[in-house]
Amino acid sequence: MDILIRNALILPMTASANDPRKFFRGSVAISGGRISSVLPATPDNGSDDRGTESENRSRRVIDAGGKLLMPGLINLHNHVAMSLMRNYADDLPLMEWLADRVWPFEAKLTGDDVYLGARLGIAEMLLGGTTTFVDMYWHADRVAEAVLESGMRAVVCPAFIDTNYEAFERETVRLVERYAGADGGRLGVRIAPHAPYTCSPESVRKALSLCERYGLGIHVHLSETRSETETIRQRYDKTPTEYLRDLGVFDYPTLAVHCVHLTEEDMDILLRYGVSVAYNPQSNMKLASGIAPVARMIGRGLTVGIGTDGPCSNNDLDMWDEMRTASLLQKVATGDASVLPAYETLRMATVGGACAVGMEGELGVVAPGARADLILVDMGGPHWAPGNDPIAGLVYNAKSTDVDTVLVDGRILVERGELIGTDTVALVREACRRVERIERR
Amino acid sequence: MDILIRNALILPMTASANDPRKFFRGSVAISGGRISSVLPATPDNGSDDRGTESENRSRRVIDAGGKLLMPGLINLHNHVAMSLMRNYADDLPLMEWLADRVWPFEAKLTGDDVYLGARLGIAEMLLGGTTTFVDMYWHADRVAEAVLESGMRAVVCPAFIDTNYEAFERETVRLVERYAGADGGRLGVRIAPHAPYTCSPESVRKALSLCERYGLGIHVHLSETRSETETIRQRYDKTPTEYLRDLGVFDYPTLAVHCVHLTEEDMDILLRYGVSVAYNPQSNMKLASGIAPVARMIGRGLTVGIGTDGPCSNNDLDMWDEMRTASLLQKVATGDASVLPAYETLRMATVGGACAVGMEGELGVVAPGARADLILVDMGGPHWAPGNDPIAGLVYNAKSTDVDTVLVDGRILVERGELIGTDTVALVREACRRVERIERR
Repeated sequence: MDILIRNALILPMTASANDPRKFFRGSVAISGGRISSVLPATPDNGSDDRGTESENRSRRVIDAGGKLLMPGLINLHNHVAMSLMRNYADDLPLMEWLADRVWPFEAKLTGDDVYLGARLGIAEMLLGGTTTFVDMYWHADRVAEAVLESGMRAVVCPAFIDTNYEAFERETVRLVERYAGADGGRLGVRIAPHAPYTCSPESVRKALSLCERYGLGIHVHLSETRSETETIRQRYDKTPTEYLRDLGVFDYPTLAVHCVHLTEEDMDILLRYGVSVAYNPQSNMKLASGIAPVARMIGRGLTVGIGTDGPCSNNDLDMWDEMRTASLLQKVATGDASVLPAYETLRMATVGGACAVGMEGELGVVAPGARADLILVDMGGPHWAPGNDPIAGLVYNAKSTDVDTVLVDGRILVERGELIGTDTVALVREACRRVERIERR
Repeated sequence: MDILIRNALILPMTASANDPRKFFRGSVAISGGRISSVLPATPDNGSDDRGTESENRSRRVIDAGGKLLMPGLINLHNHVAMSLMRNYADDLPLMEWLADRVWPFEAKLTGDDVYLGARLGIAEMLLGGTTTFVDMYWHADRVAEAVLESGMRAVVCPAFIDTNYEAFERETVRLVERYAGADGGRLGVRIAPHAPYTCSPESVRKALSLCERYGLGIHVHLSETRSETETIRQRYDKTPTEYLRDLGVFDYPTLAVHCVHLTEEDMDILLRYGVSVAYNPQSNMKLASGIAPVARMIGRGLTVGIGTDGPCSNNDLDMWDEMRTASLLQKVATGDASVLPAYETLRMATVGGACAVGMEGELGVVAPGARADLILVDMGGPHWAPGNDPIAGLVYNAKSTDVDTVLVDGRILVERGELIGTDTVALVREACRRVERIERR
């Protein structure tokens, strides 16, 4: 259905950083899942486009009530089904976290579990104003199923390590043939070599032939920990970045995750090949992986977006919290309070994310022709007052619970802070029961 | 009025870190503003103490509905009236932030402005489950007025720098004589030398005579930035800690704030004099001050609690967000994912805060005899599921909006997420209008 959202404070994210007019009052019209017009309020249109009576007979008119309208947030890295492992393995070093807790639990997971975990994480993300996520996991076809049912947008990336390569290949073929580009491109597919230290040259090369055959891009963990860089140095006398480049990975559109331990030459390589980066500050802090040199990457011109990582290493899927941490961590790491200012941080979580998944201009902006992936944010709470600067407010004091309305492809998925068509209480109850069953297996 | 809260998951914060039984189901009875009993559910009491009919005739019975009951959070450092400057000066280096933005705005503030700013910040804190805060500011008598009206608990600390010493002394005398120990000790008073670099030996010595005369403790910024330590080294050939010690500051109960740049000898001094520390991770990140060696301080046996700092340097008063950052920042700074585990972080924000303001056993615990400063937390949202570990959940995924009920001194101040007796919408509107007026002055 067509929609007119009027009486909004519009933050289109199309202005440059030094443009003084980054937001304005006005209305946004939506038709066929895309934005058809963005009209600033003027004295001529009665300070707002209300639409004509005949126009409005065939569309829904939403009075935004002065709320802020902006592009939905893009969560660039997730293992959404790990929501079932939320708070299951906290305060542990990475290898203990993986080997003693995560892997044994994951070994018991069925496709049905992954589907339920994805539904839970998707509910959390939508409620918090995230409209697109990039996911890396096993049973990716079941994640895709949950995405398509939910109305959310995602790039789903089946993952492999050397020991599960055959299963991964079957899954990828099934996924691509069944789902790639489904629902007008709402579901995208990439493949995910898990990481340089878990994927040998042989399996990476085999996987690249899938990219070639199906026209797929890559999602890969890269230089997350110091021990990874040491391992790859010992095995191949290369940095993890050089290792992937030499295998030809970067000849395909690549979104690299973490990038905590990069050399200047690594950054040159990523820039030259147009590799995008997903910055996951809370996960890197929680697992004590280190601080990615994001201010430096941005200064070098790399495309960087923000991800939460999975709910087992974060432990939520709250992109507001993540944006705040993203900025604050770079400030303290560089000793410069002016790096990653609010607007730049918002750009990472919108425009940056869109570029990183190859959807520049389609997502991450409020502009005619773009997909109508939009959110309305209520700025009325005391934590917003006195409203000196809404852009700074979005990064430094907004809460995910301030999100009032969420649209993907022009379809309303959240309204007045409630998920449409999903019984959240029942979903939570089902997840709790499921985890009890998994632990007994 | 007496109260019985039944059917709660009680986290009393009295268990040691290695006690496997940190929480239990049960009920808490409140009488005369204090906790009169904490009863675990047993098969004998029908799995829960429902009270007898005659008992319940004279008290209110609250069915917690399985929510988590814990001590209210203690925000150890604030400049609450700076809520009026929220988002007024973001992404700026500390000295520019102060000299170009904060000081010129503050120069225009009247006592009425401070009172309104305090009301706004108090509303935000109560809604988020903070029951006690320590505040440092000018016009502290007006902060005290807002505190007493709100029902919240606070330690209010009039601040001085050399140039306003006389006004400070008059204000302190007025404050102490009018308010100290007001409402059964709900309002405490300390004095606040602003910082070593803004307070000369002469004014600090004069201020200490007030401590002596009125039996007051101290709240002081200490070693916030590297430039502070350099300045004090140049002026006095001492560290800021040595400077305060040599003036006799630490002979009075002292709560030192920030403590980012401490030497090992400084930590020895703080420990020897029983000085408590307020850790403000988000403020230190935002202003690029550095990372306080909190894991090390705790290892050395120092009492450390958590503060948000003022809403102009944070920019909210959300202790959940602050706890999460407190833990994550120490993990990444030390390279050890196991430091500041969830329970220890919760202890800092409850028991640690209580010790830091000299109210050990009175606040920060759910125990018979303690003040009934309690909160109920709703763990039903999808960001909590599947509930693998409520303690980790409180630190790593709880939101301030999960706080359902807040009591201070046994009086219900927040119920079903709404402030009792305060029109929050009107308060926010008043703050917005007020700031417009201040800017025109």
